[in-house]
Amino acid sequence: MAVQLPDDVVERGNGKIVFLILDGLGGLPHPDTGKTELETANTPNLDRLARTSAVGLAEPVLPGIAPGSGPGHLALFGYDPIRWNIGRGVLSALGVDFELREGDVAARLNFTTVDASGNIVDRRAGRPSDAENRRLVEKLRAGVRAPDGVEVFFEPEKEHRLVLVFRGSGLSEAVSDSDPQETGVPPLRLQALAPGAERTVQVAQDVLDQCQSVLRGEDRANGVVARGFAQYRRYPTIEDRYSMRALAIARYPMYRGVARLLGMELQPVPASDEGSIDALEARFEEFDFFFIHVKTPDARGEDGDFEGKARAIEAVDALIPRIEALKPAVLLVTGDHSTPATFRAHSWHPVPLLLSSKWVRTAPVSGFGERECLKGELGIVSSKHLMSLALAHAGRLSKYGA
Amino acid sequence: MAVQLPDDVVERGNGKIVFLILDGLGGLPHPDTGKTELETANTPNLDRLARTSAVGLAEPVLPGIAPGSGPGHLALFGYDPIRWNIGRGVLSALGVDFELREGDVAARLNFTTVDASGNIVDRRAGRPSDAENRRLVEKLRAGVRAPDGVEVFFEPEKEHRLVLVFRGSGLSEAVSDSDPQETGVPPLRLQALAPGAERTVQVAQDVLDQCQSVLRGEDRANGVVARGFAQYRRYPTIEDRYSMRALAIARYPMYRGVARLLGMELQPVPASDEGSIDALEARFEEFDFFFIHVKTPDARGEDGDFEGKARAIEAVDALIPRIEALKPAVLLVTGDHSTPATFRAHSWHPVPLLLSSKWVRTAPVSGFGERECLKGELGIVSSKHLMSLALAHAGRLSKYGA
Repeated sequence: MAVQLPDDVVERGNGKIVFLILDGLGGLPHPDTGKTELETANTPNLDRLARTSAVGLAEPVLPGIAPGSGPGHLALFGYDPIRWNIGRGVLSALGVDFELREGDVAARLNFTTVDASGNIVDRRAGRPSDAENRRLVEKLRAGVRAPDGVEVFFEPEKEHRLVLVFRGSGLSEAVSDSDPQETGVPPLRLQALAPGAERTVQVAQDVLDQCQSVLRGEDRANGVVARGFAQYRRYPTIEDRYSMRALAIARYPMYRGVARLLGMELQPVPASDEGSIDALEARFEEFDFFFIHVKTPDARGEDGDFEGKARAIEAVDALIPRIEALKPAVLLVTGDHSTPATFRAHSWHPVPLLLSSKWVRTAPVSGFGERECLKGELGIVSSKHLMSLALAHAGRLSKYGA
Repeated sequence: MAVQLPDDVVERGNGKIVFLILDGLGGLPHPDTGKTELETANTPNLDRLARTSAVGLAEPVLPGIAPGSGPGHLALFGYDPIRWNIGRGVLSALGVDFELREGDVAARLNFTTVDASGNIVDRRAGRPSDAENRRLVEKLRAGVRAPDGVEVFFEPEKEHRLVLVFRGSGLSEAVSDSDPQETGVPPLRLQALAPGAERTVQVAQDVLDQCQSVLRGEDRANGVVARGFAQYRRYPTIEDRYSMRALAIARYPMYRGVARLLGMELQPVPASDEGSIDALEARFEEFDFFFIHVKTPDARGEDGDFEGKARAIEAVDALIPRIEALKPAVLLVTGDHSTPATFRAHSWHPVPLLLSSKWVRTAPVSGFGERECLKGELGIVSSKHLMSLALAHAGRLSKYGA
């Protein structure tokens, strides 16, 4: 087991734990001011909390490694992100509430626009509406015939995104992407990445070719590309491992997918981040552990919008008093990785981290920010250890050993 | 694999990386001033660089472990120094450009002076000249007969040092040293350190006994002792693992040996540290990764020469602007271990570390020194992760996972 806890230390306690995850929270200094997004944002509540919390920096995977959202979140929940890494396809399928069975292989598809010679001209087919996406998926369901011995499922996600699932015996996830990640070229032919994957490649290529035929004649969404082939295996759940009933309050499919993979109950999608806190309040008595996911800091970081990311963090700061009012035993605020606006992508830099509980030492920090957190009592801590820290501070771990 | 990177994150980028390694850089406070060698040295360039770099302390192996040069350097290049540790014999053989083959067993030999009753009176035979060393090695080559089924090679190193290599099937490295590491006693008989090493012990003892006979009659170098029996295995190279063409600019055999083990190209031995920078400038376009090794801080530290070590560090500081002028994507300055002058030996203390790149956070530090580095954004980081950090900062790693 790659669990991060010694055996037999989990106790049934009743301290509630809230993980407030600001996606892409960590940043880099703005060249004009020398301050990061978080240091720039006006965050009176997080600053106040930092002064009475255990603070530090969370390293998502290993030094220098910029994680995708999958490993970034698995680590936060105490699952070693290298051992438990899982492909995009499975996370996408779980994110749209598809009931995966052990051995299913899933891939993330994009609707694309291709020209007369088969070259991709738009990898997102002009971002169709969700309604249009559903119409196109129905067309694929009706028109694509499953190869012998395999079941095939198409599930709409959002805009240009859909999920393709194969069910049958002997399938493999060792299949390359058809998505070339660029325009002006045709989709790539699938390749086996390991011995034994040849049949899955054949089946998947057949289905992708059929998709192409079925969509011929569509104005914009006249093609598909596939990536992130991944096989579903059952994960030990949060409840199995930590004896906690867990609720995930997340608005985007990918994060809902990770939560589902770990057996969390999924709150119906809130309309806003304020709505996420409404849900937390409404269901606070029912659960022990709450995962609240906020997407905007990461989105603004990827856009290179430094000010927008700072404003997104300020919007979360304003919600903090409502969480505090519920008096969880532990409130942990961090991110799954850094997304510096200057870098415009996920990065490897450790993420500011704040753990509020009555059992902290505290350190003399002035507020919540990358440089202040360096002075904190938690130091630079591997994200996979945060769950143990939270459990301990919530009175949910017993002594290890005699 | 004990590599420190998850699979599939290495990208072919083009950011160049320079590792400037000051052997034995880390120190301890002088009892009179309370300042370490580095803190004492006048290093305006390193101080300036530290203020705009990511700084921290590098822990070579594990807390409390003082590494030899082999593990110290393997860690710097991202090879877990415990898993990839290799014996002195192999490093010495590679350091004199001997073409080792898989399965060869090498040992480091000293010419020694023994008295009439066979006791060692000088473990270095009065430090013969290199020319005298070559004459003695020729004498051994001519006089020693290889045991059946084994080839035997003698290679001169410097002064009293030579290398002995055995080639043949079924050889083992589990052979004890004959070097007693003291005088007044005879060389030790070789012992098998694991089952299956008995034949290698027999072969090696026979060769050492023949050496003794051949050298009888020599004035001073009338004996040999052996240590560091080690079997060569092929290592994954820097190019295999990181997709970088690597150049080693090192003036001492041991460090050239490590570089060769990892497949780096070896620059012909420069005459001085300034000459090392000349070589860097001359070959900067040809390679992606540069390992520059500076020996003097370690040598002065082992001598107990506190001032000499500080002056050696100052000499390196003066070379920094020439490296900066080449505009590498990453300049990393650290050591393979500490060699405090007060301690007169390799020590376990973490080593000051500076990583200059445009993707750093920076922290408020006044300069480059052991205590200032404690405040840095990298914290205390295991040396084996430095390569990942350098690759990330040079744009040579892609995101891990979906």
